[in-house]
Amino acid sequence: MQFLSDNTAAVHPRIWDALRAADAPDAPYDGDALSAALDDAFGALFGREVAVLWTATGTAANCLALAPMVPPHGAVLCHAEAHVENDEGGAPGFFLHGAKLMLVDGPDAKLTPEALTARLAAIPQGVHWVQPHAITITQATELGCVYRPEELAALSALARGRGLYLHMDGARFANAAAFLHADAATTCGDMDALSFGCIKNGGMSAEAIVFFDAGLADVARRRRKQAGQLQSKGRFLAAQLLAMLDGDLWLANGRAANAAAAEIAGSVGERLLHPVEANELFVRLSDAERQALRDQGFGFYDWGADAARFVTAWDTRQEDATALARALAQL
Amino acid sequence: MQFLSDNTAAVHPRIWDALRAADAPDAPYDGDALSAALDDAFGALFGREVAVLWTATGTAANCLALAPMVPPHGAVLCHAEAHVENDEGGAPGFFLHGAKLMLVDGPDAKLTPEALTARLAAIPQGVHWVQPHAITITQATELGCVYRPEELAALSALARGRGLYLHMDGARFANAAAFLHADAATTCGDMDALSFGCIKNGGMSAEAIVFFDAGLADVARRRRKQAGQLQSKGRFLAAQLLAMLDGDLWLANGRAANAAAAEIAGSVGERLLHPVEANELFVRLSDAERQALRDQGFGFYDWGADAARFVTAWDTRQEDATALARALAQL
Amino acid sequence: MQFLSDNTAAVHPRIWDALRAADAPDAPYDGDALSAALDDAFGALFGREVAVLWTATGTAANCLALAPMVPPHGAVLCHAEAHVENDEGGAPGFFLHGAKLMLVDGPDAKLTPEALTARLAAIPQGVHWVQPHAITITQATELGCVYRPEELAALSALARGRGLYLHMDGARFANAAAFLHADAATTCGDMDALSFGCIKNGGMSAEAIVFFDAGLADVARRRRKQAGQLQSKGRFLAAQLLAMLDGDLWLANGRAANAAAAEIAGSVGERLLHPVEANELFVRLSDAERQALRDQGFGFYDWGADAARFVTAWDTRQEDATALARALAQL
Amino acid sequence: MQFLSDNTAAVHPRIWDALRAADAPDAPYDGDALSAALDDAFGALFGREVAVLWTATGTAANCLALAPMVPPHGAVLCHAEAHVENDEGGAPGFFLHGAKLMLVDGPDAKLTPEALTARLAAIPQGVHWVQPHAITITQATELGCVYRPEELAALSALARGRGLYLHMDGARFANAAAFLHADAATTCGDMDALSFGCIKNGGMSAEAIVFFDAGLADVARRRRKQAGQLQSKGRFLAAQLLAMLDGDLWLANGRAANAAAAEIAGSVGERLLHPVEANELFVRLSDAERQALRDQGFGFYDWGADAARFVTAWDTRQEDATALARALAQL
Repeated sequence: MQFLSDNTAAVHPRIWDALRAADAPDAPYDGDALSAALDDAFGALFGREVAVLWTATGTAANCLALAPMVPPHGAVLCHAEAHVENDEGGAPGFFLHGAKLMLVDGPDAKLTPEALTARLAAIPQGVHWVQPHAITITQATELGCVYRPEELAALSALARGRGLYLHMDGARFANAAAFLHADAATTCGDMDALSFGCIKNGGMSAEAIVFFDAGLADVARRRRKQAGQLQSKGRFLAAQLLAMLDGDLWLANGRAANAAAAEIAGSVGERLLHPVEANELFVRLSDAERQALRDQGFGFYDWGADAARFVTAWDTRQEDATALARALAQL
Repeated sequence: MQFLSDNTAAVHPRIWDALRAADAPDAPYDGDALSAALDDAFGALFGREVAVLWTATGTAANCLALAPMVPPHGAVLCHAEAHVENDEGGAPGFFLHGAKLMLVDGPDAKLTPEALTARLAAIPQGVHWVQPHAITITQATELGCVYRPEELAALSALARGRGLYLHMDGARFANAAAFLHADAATTCGDMDALSFGCIKNGGMSAEAIVFFDAGLADVARRRRKQAGQLQSKGRFLAAQLLAMLDGDLWLANGRAANAAAAEIAGSVGERLLHPVEANELFVRLSDAERQALRDQGFGFYDWGADAARFVTAWDTRQEDATALARALAQL
Repeated sequence: MQFLSDNTAAVHPRIWDALRAADAPDAPYDGDALSAALDDAFGALFGREVAVLWTATGTAANCLALAPMVPPHGAVLCHAEAHVENDEGGAPGFFLHGAKLMLVDGPDAKLTPEALTARLAAIPQGVHWVQPHAITITQATELGCVYRPEELAALSALARGRGLYLHMDGARFANAAAFLHADAATTCGDMDALSFGCIKNGGMSAEAIVFFDAGLADVARRRRKQAGQLQSKGRFLAAQLLAMLDGDLWLANGRAANAAAAEIAGSVGERLLHPVEANELFVRLSDAERQALRDQGFGFYDWGADAARFVTAWDTRQEDATALARALAQL
Repeated sequence: MQFLSDNTAAVHPRIWDALRAADAPDAPYDGDALSAALDDAFGALFGREVAVLWTATGTAANCLALAPMVPPHGAVLCHAEAHVENDEGGAPGFFLHGAKLMLVDGPDAKLTPEALTARLAAIPQGVHWVQPHAITITQATELGCVYRPEELAALSALARGRGLYLHMDGARFANAAAFLHADAATTCGDMDALSFGCIKNGGMSAEAIVFFDAGLADVARRRRKQAGQLQSKGRFLAAQLLAMLDGDLWLANGRAANAAAAEIAGSVGERLLHPVEANELFVRLSDAERQALRDQGFGFYDWGADAARFVTAWDTRQEDATALARALAQL
């Protein structure tokens, strides 16, 4: 009974169907009909014009989204818990050619206008001090929490006022939308680019970068090629993304994962380190308690010395969630 | 009847089978059982210890192979026709952080010890002049020709004598092996790393970097992550590679593509710009002749003003090859 | 009466003499006789074999020292107050091609083995997490404090044990040596490279990178050229460094600056934020107090909202130091 | 009697005077009064508004001029003989983060619109092919020849028409102006930036980047700091540049060097490989002839197997030039 990560979840049957259907000859790279359909499909989802690029990993999506926003002598403001800072093997430094990540704190891994304003006030403008060019936030956050529409509005107001680009790492965007009972546009807010997650949500190997600014996308297309990310049989990536949008499969999968997390959360109330708003639970557990759970066959990661992280996915079985909830309640 | 490129060929049924079989939960990234099996599988193929990394594109394979060999102030010697120079959107400059490609000429897109020696002799050793750290060659070459074992031996002798690393871009390695009637080790010669092509040869989205030097592989693993190339469901890439080795599918597919090319070549003898040793034909054709072929439904790329390139693949249909051969003969 | 910074101090008369004496034709770049004399001159100073490169700025010295130590996928451990982190316009990101600076805290801007050990313990070894390859410390620190020999020994023991390179930013190395009443070797400890400051200490435009590892120097020489730092009339940089060593001018200048700082420190005891061990004073002062000082003609930088930084130099006039001491005492 | 290179020439007395005069305390970096005077001084020289940055080397000047023009996925068109390609240790790759130099041929190391147009026509526009963003030319060229105003006009027309930036490496700009009997604006033509050489022309350690586009200069200022090129006592670099402009010292020095070269050229007519239009002579000479000259005490570089390069400078003594002329005539 694995609750290690959603990034190893099974591939959804409808994704498989789409992959098989894509195995007809077509133009290489992103010249195929499926890749060409992405802009319209995501445009319909967000209710505005967008330019969409597929990539094979979330790390590449985040970095290729940020690369056109930030020059090598610039910086990106992000939360200290951000995936780009902690879990991407230095990818932002590589893709942005040495630009910095500037870390900002805040509860539940959320950035707030107050924290950002304070950080910005501490940066003199001279050439001795690296200047930020963009902000990146994560929806849902690395601690399983969801930005509300008004929080997003406040962040974009700040970014617009400062001339900063705004990017959303939406590795768990579907979980956020499911929690908010909101459409994609509302869940995203006014961003310049969104990394729209698919792999953790039932895909095999495709993420989408949704650019709300066509000029950024034009640069990103060249950077994608230069980064060795332009697959020759791109039709198989586009197919996954289109299948994910079709009939709102993405949202259904996000709801399923959230539901499993919510069931588990119900039995651990006071042990929770953060509200459970998406598909991740951070639970205070002693060594002995963690051992006891592992002895019962539950898989999960330690979270520091006295807590654990449990992640559900679209394919988490009802009985497994129930079993974990029960086991936690009995500790 | 498409002869545009092998990089859009269909995915082989046995690759599909392997992909479906891989859809069981396993550890993420390259921690799964299939990824773990790659070293042994390729080790058996080459008859020596190797360290193997999957990537999603040939560009990434080439650049991640070269990155551990060449510092940012160094250079790579390659043929002026090399894919790394001409078709990778500047990827080597990105992955090698500004290191240079030094171009060398030679017939059939082959590097020779003589041409390399002359180029090396022209580089003073002082700090004003960028020094080469590696040589990269392509097997089969970008002009469809195959290095013979003795040619490879001469190149590796030169590289060893000069303290240069040696890399082989094997995007069409299977076609070379099929032409040589040789095993993988003989087709490769004494390299430090090989980009073992799979996608043009019936794969979907996986190439292998075969390192014959474990230290280089250790660096490349970190660089792969930093480059956003470490997919979380890596089992689907490993599965493709294992299926390709299983029963020597790679070689069978290479032979099929070569056979189609050979049949076509038989009808265009004097028009050929280069010997047809793999699955590419470069044929002298006037504008009118190219138009005539296109009117008959043949797809291919122009090659300069008075020639065309035809590429066959593992799935080129016998009747299409025959039709093209006939059409060319009748010009 | 300026106490803004030592980096605008006048050029020492003996440096001027050396510059004029160097204006005879010689080989360009670092092929001249003066540049060739650096290794021996610094070797005598440190009592061991060294390889020395001149550069025109401290930022270049620090970054060219670190560049051969750290690959693009690596990191450097430094104090959160370090000059490389705060005041170099992102230079480490540029010179190290995206490698990270990992920040560690500690009083008086000093790194301790305890703080480093704790930071290292928090870095998992997998490819997802950037690994440190070097530590850099500043002597005297950015807060005007001096590492004692036993502190340096503890840091180098840690670095050796972990396989990390160790670099010292010695922008104010002379001030540290003067404080310790120690020779250069003792003030430096067991480093792999030292940025030996000259410009803040009476030079015009030359800093030295002293490599205690010849292999690092060989790489740095190429990186210096690639960074556009190899001046064609290098004899004028070497001349400054040789003059600085001649008769221990560096040490005399450091002592002079320290003496001025000590005099001022004597009148502000409880207001000091950090011990005054070199030539910088950090003094708690209200807005009104700072204004009062400025009204009396004293120049200095604010240090946050309720403090100020005063810096003395080799050419701080005795009467100015006395005047500032008196003015501070009278607040 | 040295004719090796102008880059080791003595420092002009008026430069020394200016250096000494600059040794009064002033604001650090480029905040001093001398640095602040550069825009107006060069603006007067070129008859238009400019933004000027000092740097310590020509390599840095060239690369910092190009860095704001070219993204990491772009390229610079230059002559195959260009200094940026051949003699800068890979600096453009470093400063431009992997962007390419695209080489173009042409007699006398000059680029022509025809050669550029042919090169551009060979670059498909897709993401697989690196796109040029700038052209750099050298005035006088690396082979000692001078672009005429109409040649410059044709190049800038091409650049404007293609949306390419245009940069001039003016390491020997004074020699070109002296040859043309033209003012600075005419010698430069319609560029976006000019590396205005000073060091080969009697300076010690300062070059100027003259930006004719203020937006480029704003980026370059940050990149200069990030590249460790922002010296803290910048007043000493500004002083050299101002002294060079004062009373047109730059032009007088250029004329002196040219006159010496012209005298020598008069005695070697048919042996010349290129017209002598500036201060460099490329002379066909056998091994024996070169040896004979060296036996007479002349210093110079070999230029391939059967030629030699002689360079004069502002301080070449009349009698040395005459002696060389005579020696060459007597061969």
